[in-house]
Parts: sequence; C-alpha cells; structure tokens
Amino acid sequence: METKKISKRKLQSAQTREKLLHAGQETFIEYGFQKTTISQIIKKAKTGYGTAYVYFKNKDDLLIELLEDVMARFYEIANMTYKPTSKKEAYDLIEQQSILFLDMANKEKLMMQVIEEAIRLSDNVRKKWTEIREQFIKRISEDIAYAQKNELARIDVDCSIVARAWFHANEMYLWEIVKDVKTPPIKEIVHNIASIYTGGLYK
Amino acid sequence: METKKISKRKLQSAQTREKLLHAGQETFIEYGFQKTTISQIIKKAKTGYGTAYVYFKNKDDLLIELLEDVMARFYEIANMTYKPTSKKEAYDLIEQQSILFLDMANKEKLMMQVIEEAIRLSDNVRKKWTEIREQFIKRISEDIAYAQKNELARIDVDCSIVARAWFHANEMYLWEIVKDVKTPPIKEIVHNIASIYTGGLYK
Repeated sequence: METKKISKRKLQSAQTREKLLHAGQETFIEYGFQKTTISQIIKKAKTGYGTAYVYFKNKDDLLIELLEDVMARFYEIANMTYKPTSKKEAYDLIEQQSILFLDMANKEKLMMQVIEEAIRLSDNVRKKWTEIREQFIKRISEDIAYAQKNELARIDVDCSIVARAWFHANEMYLWEIVKDVKTPPIKEIVHNIASIYTGGLYK
Repeated sequence: METKKISKRKLQSAQTREKLLHAGQETFIEYGFQKTTISQIIKKAKTGYGTAYVYFKNKDDLLIELLEDVMARFYEIANMTYKPTSKKEAYDLIEQQSILFLDMANKEKLMMQVIEEAIRLSDNVRKKWTEIREQFIKRISEDIAYAQKNELARIDVDCSIVARAWFHANEMYLWEIVKDVKTPPIKEIVHNIASIYTGGLYK
C-alpha cells in the first residue's frame, strides 16, 4: 500500500511538472521570453502557485529545462557513432551530422527563437548555454582525436581548438536559420563548410 | 568673417561631440551598458542637456558611434591588401590578419565587453553589429574570389558561404577573448584555424 501511494504521488508530480513545461513552452513561443511571466505559465498550466514553485523557482529555471530538452535532441546528433575508415567516410559522416543539426534548428525554430532571446537576456540561461556548447565541443574534439589516432586526420593541429572553430561555424549558421535570415539552402551551406573543414583536417 | 564664424561653430560642435563620446566611453566602461544613463554621460561631459540631444538622441545612438569607431580599426585589418601568389603566401597573410584581429579584440577588451552587452540588450546596436559583420564577410568573400580567380583556391566552393564560416570562427574566438574565457594563446588559436581553413580552401 505504502509503495503504491508513493508511486501515485510520483506520477502526479511528474504530470504537474510536464503540464508546467508544456504551458511554459506555449507561453514563451506566443509572447517571447522577456514578456512571459511565471504567473502566466502557472495560470495556463492550471496548477496552484505553491505547487508550481516546487518545480521551478522562476521563468529562467523553466526555460533552462526546455533548453535542455531541445538540446538533448541536438546532442543525439552530435553523439552519433563516428568511426570513419577513410577521408571520404569522414566527410560523409560530418556532412550528415551537420545537415541533421541545422535541419533540427529549422524544425525547432520557434522554440530556438525563444532560446536565442533568453540567452541574450538571462545570465542563468546564457551560463547553461555555455555548458551545453562545451559538451558539443568536447564530443567533436573526441571525434577529431579518433581520426588523428587512426591516421586519417593531421596530427599537427590541436583537436580542441579545431573542434571549437567547427562548432562555431555550425552554431552561427544555426542562429541565422533560427532568426530567419535569408540563408542559402542547408545542404549548400553544409556542403561548403564541411568540404573546407574535412579538406583541411583530413589527409 | 562669416566663413570664420561658421568654422568656429563647426569646431565647437565637433569638440562637444568628442567630449560626449569620450564621456560615454568612460561611463560605459565603468558601469556597463545597461546601467549607464544618458544623463550620467551628459553630466560627465559637462555639456548642456539640450546640446547633448542635438548629437545623440539616446545611449544606443552614442554606443553605436563608439562601436563604429572601434570597428573601423578592425576593418582596417580586414581591408589589408590581399594579393597572394601562392598557398604559402595566402596562409601567411590570413594568419597575420587573424592574429591582428584577435590582438585588437584583446587590446580593446574593455570597450568590446560593453559592446557585447549592448549587442545582446539593444535591438538597435544588434542591427548595427549585423551590418558591420556583413561588411567583414563581404571583404573576406572578395579575397576568396580573388584567390579563386587566380587559381590558388578551389573553385567548387561558394566564396560567400565559406567567408561567413571563416568570419564566424574568428568572431567566436574574439568574444571568448573579450569575455576573458580561458582561451589558448592567440597565436596558437590562429595557427590551428588558419591552417585548417587554408588547407581546405587552397590548392
């Protein structure tokens, strides 16, 4: 009996949290980050104020949760198996990753627009974004080190400096897509940047 | 006589403007963009309110002027003669430009920190920054086109997409230097990114 009771409570708790996140996402997308208030979100989620504050102490907190959710989907792409056996294979994998990454930005455009605003305006969100970015750079850095170890990539370059530059190039195009700047088609962007990158890095 | 009178007025006008810009720079650096008010700047410059508003309607305006001043120094670097006759020469020129660019960021760190904040918080400043960035990208794009025309660079890539990615990589390192993120030495950053870039782009 005791166990069941706890489970039920846990389930309810997860549902409340989920309702708040969902309401938060909708409100942020409708009004933008700055204009959204936590009260609006609580009202939309139809939860009590006291309850809501158990889960999120402010809108920054809630946005960070949504940011982590959406970035987890990006990170799955960055985390794809990377075991190329030739320069051609390396190019294909990198091109594929980069296309998936920018396509995801396009697909999640509305939420990414809110995130862009929040990164600019909130110190907490920006700090979180920096942490997430470092995870991506670390992952790319490992891929480069793998290629160096397997004598596919030049060993006279520092994998972490190069990884950062490669992520930067992709990230800047990501924001241009998100902000609806008139960009060339994603495939064209990626073909160009991936061929310079692999051309310069791989032997 | 009439001419002299106008000249004197013009000189005084230039001096007032200069005083306001100088006071603005000092105030922004001391308090940051958000916390600075136009009244503080006017007080520091010891000009009348009415006079001040002839030159700058708000602090965004004044900051944009300072932004243009500092970016003109960066643009001189981007605008250096670029007529390489070999891949090695291209690398040396690009490396030199990139080092000068990041050194300038380091030298102008205090003002660039203010600019970074202003770009995030002010729509007007951000718009201006986008315009300035486009000038840099256009200039790099022309350099790549020159190298392509002279059969030094691959012609199967789009010079403007590649120029944007190269500027992005440099710009992101610029902000890391400005924000005092623990970065590797500038020469090491540049050696790595320039050698991947020229290695991939040049024949």
